[in-house]
Amino acid sequence: MTQVRNKQVILKDYVSGFPKESDMNIVDSTITLKLPQGSNELLLKNLYLSCDPYMRILMTKDTTAGLGAYTPGSPLTGYGVSKVMESGHQDYKKGDLVWGMTKWEEYSLVPATGMRKIEHTDVPLSHYTGILGTPKKGDNVFVSAAAGAVGQLVGQFAKLTGCYVVGSAGTKEKVDLLKNKFGYDEAFNYKEEHDLNAALKRYFQEGIDIYFENVGGKTLDAVLPNMRVHGRILVCGMISQYNLIQPEGITNLAHIIYKRIQMQGFIAPDYYHFYTKFLEFILPLIREGKIVYVEDIAKGLENGPKALVGLFSGHNVGKQVVFVAHE
Amino acid sequence: MTQVRNKQVILKDYVSGFPKESDMNIVDSTITLKLPQGSNELLLKNLYLSCDPYMRILMTKDTTAGLGAYTPGSPLTGYGVSKVMESGHQDYKKGDLVWGMTKWEEYSLVPATGMRKIEHTDVPLSHYTGILGTPKKGDNVFVSAAAGAVGQLVGQFAKLTGCYVVGSAGTKEKVDLLKNKFGYDEAFNYKEEHDLNAALKRYFQEGIDIYFENVGGKTLDAVLPNMRVHGRILVCGMISQYNLIQPEGITNLAHIIYKRIQMQGFIAPDYYHFYTKFLEFILPLIREGKIVYVEDIAKGLENGPKALVGLFSGHNVGKQVVFVAHE
Repeated sequence: MTQVRNKQVILKDYVSGFPKESDMNIVDSTITLKLPQGSNELLLKNLYLSCDPYMRILMTKDTTAGLGAYTPGSPLTGYGVSKVMESGHQDYKKGDLVWGMTKWEEYSLVPATGMRKIEHTDVPLSHYTGILGTPKKGDNVFVSAAAGAVGQLVGQFAKLTGCYVVGSAGTKEKVDLLKNKFGYDEAFNYKEEHDLNAALKRYFQEGIDIYFENVGGKTLDAVLPNMRVHGRILVCGMISQYNLIQPEGITNLAHIIYKRIQMQGFIAPDYYHFYTKFLEFILPLIREGKIVYVEDIAKGLENGPKALVGLFSGHNVGKQVVFVAHE
Repeated sequence: MTQVRNKQVILKDYVSGFPKESDMNIVDSTITLKLPQGSNELLLKNLYLSCDPYMRILMTKDTTAGLGAYTPGSPLTGYGVSKVMESGHQDYKKGDLVWGMTKWEEYSLVPATGMRKIEHTDVPLSHYTGILGTPKKGDNVFVSAAAGAVGQLVGQFAKLTGCYVVGSAGTKEKVDLLKNKFGYDEAFNYKEEHDLNAALKRYFQEGIDIYFENVGGKTLDAVLPNMRVHGRILVCGMISQYNLIQPEGITNLAHIIYKRIQMQGFIAPDYYHFYTKFLEFILPLIREGKIVYVEDIAKGLENGPKALVGLFSGHNVGKQVVFVAHE
C-alpha cells in the first residue's frame, strides 16, 4: 500500500493571549490511503477548512468552557468540506462530498457520525463551512462583528424580515460593505467611536430590540443600557474576550432586570436538526441572489495558521475559509 | 374640615453609595382627611409599608434604568397595605383593605389604578407586601439572598416542585433558618467562603440547572462557570450592585455561550395579570402551613429609614416590612 504525504497543521502547545502563527507547525506526515480493516469510519480528502473564533477557546488548556480542548502535538480540528475516498459506513460511498468535523490536514480518517452529505452542489462548496444562527422577527436590530462570517448573514436575514438593522465593524471597507452589499440600514466603525454608547444612541433613538452578540466586552456593556424593555440578546460569540487571561468585566448587567431582557447563548450543533429546513430556506435565496455571502479564502493548508490568527485582529472580510485542494 | 398630622418619610436628596438613614427626614406635615371635590382617587390610611431593594435604584438621579426616580423633598413611594378612608372610584368603598403603590406617610391620596382589593384577610395583612417570582420545575436550584423576602419563597416553591435546592445568605442565623425552617437541602454563609466557586462545586457536583439571582456581582461571576448546559438564570435583583458608583464587572459571561444559558430579567408588575391565579395557589399553602413566610417588622413609620437602609447590609431576616398603624 502506497503512502502519500499528509501535510498537517499541528498545535504546538496551549495558547495564552492572542494566538500566533508560531503556535502552530506545518508538518509533513504520511498516510496510507486505505481504511483500516473493519473500520466504519470515512477516509476523506479535505477540500476547504473553516476558520472560526471558537477554535481559540479550544486552544486553552484548563478550559472551564466544557467544549473540549485541542491536544498539543495533534492537528487542529474544525469544520470542513471533504470528499470521501473510502467509506466504512453504509450511508456514504466513494466520491461523496461531505461537510462536518474534520482535521487540519490533507487527508483525514474521521467518524461518519460527524459528517453530513452535500446534496446541492450548485452553490460554492466552501459555503458549507458557514454555519449560522438566525434572529427572530423584530424591529430594531444591532449586529456586532457585522461583516464577519455570521454577522453578514444575520443582518441580511433581519432585513428580509423587515427589521431596521445597524451593524458595527472595524474598518471603513467593512462599513461600506455592510451598507452597500449586505443592505444594512446603517453601519459604523467601532474603532472610530470614542463613545460607543453615544454611537448606539445615534442609530437607536428608541433603543435596541434585538442585539446579536458576536464580540462581548465593551460593546456589550454599551449595548445593555440601550436595550428596550423586553429586548432580546442572542449570544453567538464574544470574540473580543477569547484571548484575554482576565476577561473585561461587564458592568451594566442590572439592565437585564430594568429592561426585562432575555439573553440566550447558543452554539450551532444544538440546532442541527433544523439543517434540512434551513437548506430549503437558504438555497433558493442564494441562487436568486437575495442573500449575498462574502468569503475570504486563504489558499493552501500552509496558510491556515495565518488565516486563523487573522480572525482576532479582524483581517478577514466575511467568512474566513482555507482552501486545501480541488476535488 | 379638620386637619390631622401626617407623618412622612422624605427623601432629602439623591443618594450616592450606600443609603443612610440621614438621607431621609421624618417630617410632620398635615392633611385634610377628605377627598378633593370630583377626585376619583383613594384616600388611604397606610398600615404596612414594604422595604424593597429596588427602592435604592429610584434614589439615584440620572438613572438609566428607566424605572423612574424619586423626587427629593417628597415622600418615598412603595408597596403597602392600606385601608380606604374615602373613595372616589366605583370599585372601592370606605373600609376596603387594599394593597399596591402608596407613599411613606400615615395617610395618602393615590390613584385607584395602582391598588388592588384584599379579599382574603385570614392571612396576615403584611403578607400582601410580599411580591415574588416563581421558578420553573427543574433539578438543581441555587438561590442567593435566600433568606430574604423573595429567596425564602423561591426555595420553598422549588422544594414543592421536587428540586434540590441550595441557598446562600450572610449570617449563621440565616443559614440555620434556610435549612431548618424553609426546607433548603443545603445552605452556606457566603461571607465565610473565601472561594465562592469552590463552595458551589461542593454543593453542585453536577452543576446548576437554575440560578435565581438576587445579588449580582461576585456571586453571579462564580455561578456562571458552574451552570449546566441549557441552564437558566432568572434575574430578579442584583442588590450587591445598587450602591456602587461603578458596578463590579462580570467576567465569566462567555459561559452563556458555552452552556447555552438563558438569562431572563423580570420585574413583578409584568406578571400582575397572574395575580388571581397566584392567590389561588398560595393562600391554601399558607393556611395549611406548607409555605412558611418570615417577616421582619419594624414598628413605626419613624423607623422606616433604618429598616430600608438595613436591607443593604443584610440586617433583615426575611421580608422587611414597616408597621405604620392598626386598621
